[in-house]
Amino acid sequence: MELFYSNDIRGDLVYFDQDEACHLIKVLRHRRGDEIAVMDGKGCLLHCRLEEDSPKAASALILSREEGFGAHPYTLTLAVCPTKNNERFEWMGEKATEFGMDVLYPVIGEHSERKVYKTERMKRIVLSAAKQSLKAAIPLVEECVSVKDFICSRPDDELKLIAYCFEGQKLSIKEALQNSSCSKVSVLIGPEGDFSAEEVQLALDKGFVPVHLGTSRLRTETAALCAVMAVYNKYM
Amino acid sequence: MELFYSNDIRGDLVYFDQDEACHLIKVLRHRRGDEIAVMDGKGCLLHCRLEEDSPKAASALILSREEGFGAHPYTLTLAVCPTKNNERFEWMGEKATEFGMDVLYPVIGEHSERKVYKTERMKRIVLSAAKQSLKAAIPLVEECVSVKDFICSRPDDELKLIAYCFEGQKLSIKEALQNSSCSKVSVLIGPEGDFSAEEVQLALDKGFVPVHLGTSRLRTETAALCAVMAVYNKYM
Repeated sequence: MELFYSNDIRGDLVYFDQDEACHLIKVLRHRRGDEIAVMDGKGCLLHCRLEEDSPKAASALILSREEGFGAHPYTLTLAVCPTKNNERFEWMGEKATEFGMDVLYPVIGEHSERKVYKTERMKRIVLSAAKQSLKAAIPLVEECVSVKDFICSRPDDELKLIAYCFEGQKLSIKEALQNSSCSKVSVLIGPEGDFSAEEVQLALDKGFVPVHLGTSRLRTETAALCAVMAVYNKYM
Repeated sequence: MELFYSNDIRGDLVYFDQDEACHLIKVLRHRRGDEIAVMDGKGCLLHCRLEEDSPKAASALILSREEGFGAHPYTLTLAVCPTKNNERFEWMGEKATEFGMDVLYPVIGEHSERKVYKTERMKRIVLSAAKQSLKAAIPLVEECVSVKDFICSRPDDELKLIAYCFEGQKLSIKEALQNSSCSKVSVLIGPEGDFSAEEVQLALDKGFVPVHLGTSRLRTETAALCAVMAVYNKYM
């Protein structure tokens, strides 16, 4: 099964942008009358019949709609400091999407070596991973914010977890998830140089629960994936 | 902390091969008298003092030994059909090592597109991942075998799991792990085209427990990592 994507839906018609039209018509040679599956990026799968089959302007008629296609029973916001190596960070975005992630925040900590992060490529990566793993919702990739701004922006009705390397009493992420019945979770993963003491204190003040990710020493991107999988595992 | 590696240990002396000697002496500029940490690849960390500091022939005196350094409380054998894209498979080997894996078998199924797999690069990758994640034991990368040979070669005193896509009653891997007190686990992950019906039947006959990996549609290499993470999570 192949999923196509459009966010331009008007009434019963779906319009494709030029990239998607090209892929649909030129690469995969679909023609008027073919039945295709389209995701709206918000969780709905649209069963469609192709109408216009030009590689410059393709459109399809919606035959039926399937809400919550490929959905997961939790809402996960993942905030991660981008790694120096971009490929590792992008890999993490792909895998987190495959497991199930709703929002990705690239965050910049006081000890971050990388102080800027452009989100365009990551947006394409999570779209492609969502298609590949048959999820009709595309994770939202937010613009870069500081760790402190992320901490201060979280809502109250959410289980908020922070993973850092400082010593101190910490639950495992597994225990912290088990102890909570909240299905809205956010996890904050620090940069290669860890959080500053001030960032950790602010997080604790704002109700974040400090967690560890087990005994292995994990790279930043592996730690982020470990957190995603811990949530996935809880609901497995 | 940086780990060096040697498998040439004679009495109280550690000898480095040319690659490692070059890295130690030329790149990192260690000199006679420097204290360094060396892993033997079998789980022991050796605290050493550098003796010979030539980039062609370096050696060190063992001051003390620490067994089980970076060890995990289970034994995991992972058998995975190599993906068409080599990079994805190698990535999986790296991440599985970071979490904790003991043996990796590249296996070839009846539906595998790839029928051969050379293990040299993977051996270097798991060595480097073991160093990076401070584990003194290097996962063993076995030579390629067929799925059927792998199935028939497993010992009795092991929890044997097989993840496949056919319909049928299956526990989640999390439940299967919870139901067993066995700390020796092997997991068999199929190729992109899944196992053949015959391979699945043979596995069931040989006591493999069929499991699913949750509701997400995962790529082969993500499925393998999901299995590793499920075991890691059990002992977290």
